[in-house]
Amino acid sequence: MEIIQPLDAAFLLAESREHPMHVGSLMLLEPPADAGPDYAYQMYEQMIASNDVHPTFLKRLATPFGSVGSFGWVQDEEIDWEYHVRRVAMPSPGRIRELLAVVSRWHGTLLDRHRPLWEVHIIEGLADGRVAVYTKVHHALVDGVSALRLLENRLTTDPDARDCVAPWQRLPESQRKRPRKPPPDRSLGALVKTGGQVVSEIAGLVPDTVKMARRSFSEGGLQGPFQAPKTMFNVPIGGARRFAAQSWDIDRINKVRKAAGVSVNDVVVAMCAGALRAYLLEHDGLPDDSLKAMVPISTRSPENIDAAGNAVGMIICNLGTDEADPVERLAVVHKSMASGKDMFVDVGSLAGLAWSGTAASPLLASRIPGALSLMRQSFNVIISNVPGPRETVYWNGARLDGLYPVSVVTEGQALNITLTNTAGTLDFGVIGDRKSIPHLQHILTHLETSLSELEEAYA
Amino acid sequence: MEIIQPLDAAFLLAESREHPMHVGSLMLLEPPADAGPDYAYQMYEQMIASNDVHPTFLKRLATPFGSVGSFGWVQDEEIDWEYHVRRVAMPSPGRIRELLAVVSRWHGTLLDRHRPLWEVHIIEGLADGRVAVYTKVHHALVDGVSALRLLENRLTTDPDARDCVAPWQRLPESQRKRPRKPPPDRSLGALVKTGGQVVSEIAGLVPDTVKMARRSFSEGGLQGPFQAPKTMFNVPIGGARRFAAQSWDIDRINKVRKAAGVSVNDVVVAMCAGALRAYLLEHDGLPDDSLKAMVPISTRSPENIDAAGNAVGMIICNLGTDEADPVERLAVVHKSMASGKDMFVDVGSLAGLAWSGTAASPLLASRIPGALSLMRQSFNVIISNVPGPRETVYWNGARLDGLYPVSVVTEGQALNITLTNTAGTLDFGVIGDRKSIPHLQHILTHLETSLSELEEAYA
Repeated sequence: MEIIQPLDAAFLLAESREHPMHVGSLMLLEPPADAGPDYAYQMYEQMIASNDVHPTFLKRLATPFGSVGSFGWVQDEEIDWEYHVRRVAMPSPGRIRELLAVVSRWHGTLLDRHRPLWEVHIIEGLADGRVAVYTKVHHALVDGVSALRLLENRLTTDPDARDCVAPWQRLPESQRKRPRKPPPDRSLGALVKTGGQVVSEIAGLVPDTVKMARRSFSEGGLQGPFQAPKTMFNVPIGGARRFAAQSWDIDRINKVRKAAGVSVNDVVVAMCAGALRAYLLEHDGLPDDSLKAMVPISTRSPENIDAAGNAVGMIICNLGTDEADPVERLAVVHKSMASGKDMFVDVGSLAGLAWSGTAASPLLASRIPGALSLMRQSFNVIISNVPGPRETVYWNGARLDGLYPVSVVTEGQALNITLTNTAGTLDFGVIGDRKSIPHLQHILTHLETSLSELEEAYA
Repeated sequence: MEIIQPLDAAFLLAESREHPMHVGSLMLLEPPADAGPDYAYQMYEQMIASNDVHPTFLKRLATPFGSVGSFGWVQDEEIDWEYHVRRVAMPSPGRIRELLAVVSRWHGTLLDRHRPLWEVHIIEGLADGRVAVYTKVHHALVDGVSALRLLENRLTTDPDARDCVAPWQRLPESQRKRPRKPPPDRSLGALVKTGGQVVSEIAGLVPDTVKMARRSFSEGGLQGPFQAPKTMFNVPIGGARRFAAQSWDIDRINKVRKAAGVSVNDVVVAMCAGALRAYLLEHDGLPDDSLKAMVPISTRSPENIDAAGNAVGMIICNLGTDEADPVERLAVVHKSMASGKDMFVDVGSLAGLAWSGTAASPLLASRIPGALSLMRQSFNVIISNVPGPRETVYWNGARLDGLYPVSVVTEGQALNITLTNTAGTLDFGVIGDRKSIPHLQHILTHLETSLSELEEAYA
């Protein structure tokens, strides 16, 4: 039996019917020119034809319900394909709207703990002939970054290749050796290396966590915990979700970035900041103090990217939502991101891991003696930018048109914005608690407005 | 705040991710001759057009997680229609097989406790042009019988009527006064009348429960608890389900019934007994001792049929699975059903209610001090025959072609067979835990074989 790493176990402990702890993604694929009307079915058949499953996707909990230190993984030998890989269809008229409704529903349901913790839904019925693939993997198995990376590694820049394997399959030896560019913004990644087996229990990490929180206070310029105002995003949540997704041309973000002399991530976070300000104004809920965002950074070293398990660090960023001026807001974000990065680098690996893991979920922290008071309201929202493929990529000839992360919301964190990129676009996935975040799709409109305002300011 | 009846609260307490406690049904509807290709969408629009929701379907839990005695209902004022009423499509080629896969999936997911505990799925994409409606309601809101009755009351024998309301809507005054034949086999129903507000806690009912169990032992001929052998159906269960459904011509059952001089229910239970024997033989798991089935009987009086809440009594029936001869098996079932019925009539109302409720779920009983030991292995499987409409009925011109109950499986009760009837057919719904009951659909084949054998024996 494989022992579960403490952070991974925490995601199992924290899970309840209100708090499914799986990460997801939605891919839009344009079938190759020679595809027939039953292309989605062909894709399904092709995917389940092989039994060469990656060990991560054969892992099953030895006991479905454990406690800290008592969880373990065993390897299943067989996969119930009909359960794990699902053919799904969209109701008419098959617009993106119907697609998002389907994903919203499935993202709100729990994975069965009596089998490997993943599902893949192959979705047919889009009016424009594209096929969508919604993937759902438990956070105890992989973090959101690794989940996207797993998908990506199974895609290729060669439109004629027909040897691409399914997301859950082992990469063939030949494809493992394909040279991969290190993903951008990953220099931090190498700083924290997690050992293969971290066997200390989470509770044992608390003293370090406390130390780190104190440090962030003693250095005045940094954004530490305790400093975020109360908003409508920071409430108890229900079990249902609402998901919205949209792509933006990366050239538009790049123009602003160059003109302002900041990073892509700074522009993206400022774009979100403007959208959140507008959404809160719409709901008469903008606090006087600025919102804080938790911006996760992968701490997985490039050579470990295909491995299982979680490795996530974070920055707490001031969003400047008290600023009406988009230029001022971008300046606040830029400054905050820079100092946040410095803080992160200063921190030891395991404590950084623990802090980021626990702070990401007050509910999770509540299982750790003494940790809850530290975690109260340290940020309002998670904004995560996960690097994706920069070139046009294909899965057995089907072109990847969009790749939208579908992340996790937790108690007190009813909204999450995660984005990645495909060739030429930034693909935003916005997930929220269905009850607390009404008209979540308006955030997409506000994102567009927010970007337009930055464009105008730097035109 | 409305206080929740103890049995209803028990269904909430017993619920976990392994044990969703909702009941469902699957309707097959043949659209009227003038229906267009977007008939399912029209039906959806028609259903959600009215806000006149029956109070039962506006009930929400005051606190999503309570304990015995602490649950209460509040009335929601608004319905999130997109959440509760879902447009769903089937993947190609749109056979019954794909439909059953869709229902299997949705029956394994929990309802959101932060809103009224029901969902209706309007399913398009059947190759034969029919529309399916899958309904899912929490057992704390209505029992399976009431759920089917609610649907039925909204149907009419008039194919030209266009004033049928949605299952969750209040019945218009005019339709409430429609004369209704008392449903068959309901004479027992009037014996147990539950008060509107039963405020005693479940724990308080245990002494009566114990008394009743003892009585069943002192009368040698009756089948009481403790007497069922261990089988593959009586194991811990996971969260995923497998559902199969099929209709049988009621004339076939009637011929056997008349020739054997028994009731329809006797033939149905014997038909199931033969199928279970064959399925267990197929899996090399037939025990020497005969299986026992729990056969629920509604104790709701006819005038209370449209009301909310649970009212279920039961018989423990010897299935004669140790008999190879179908005629002998039918004789055992007939004798056992008759004595079981006598026992039931002897029992006081509230104790009967408590016993049937608790015995129906060992998990549920485990919450009641001292009750668990009573409940261990009192039966192997639930077989439930719920009377349905005897004439051809319509919903706004769409003919009801089939009505398949989708019931609950629980810890130690991994299989459930529930049937009802529509005009001329008996419609069987077989639900099982996905992991414990492999090839569940074989039970349909065995049911056919079992009926054929009885037909041959009485030809």
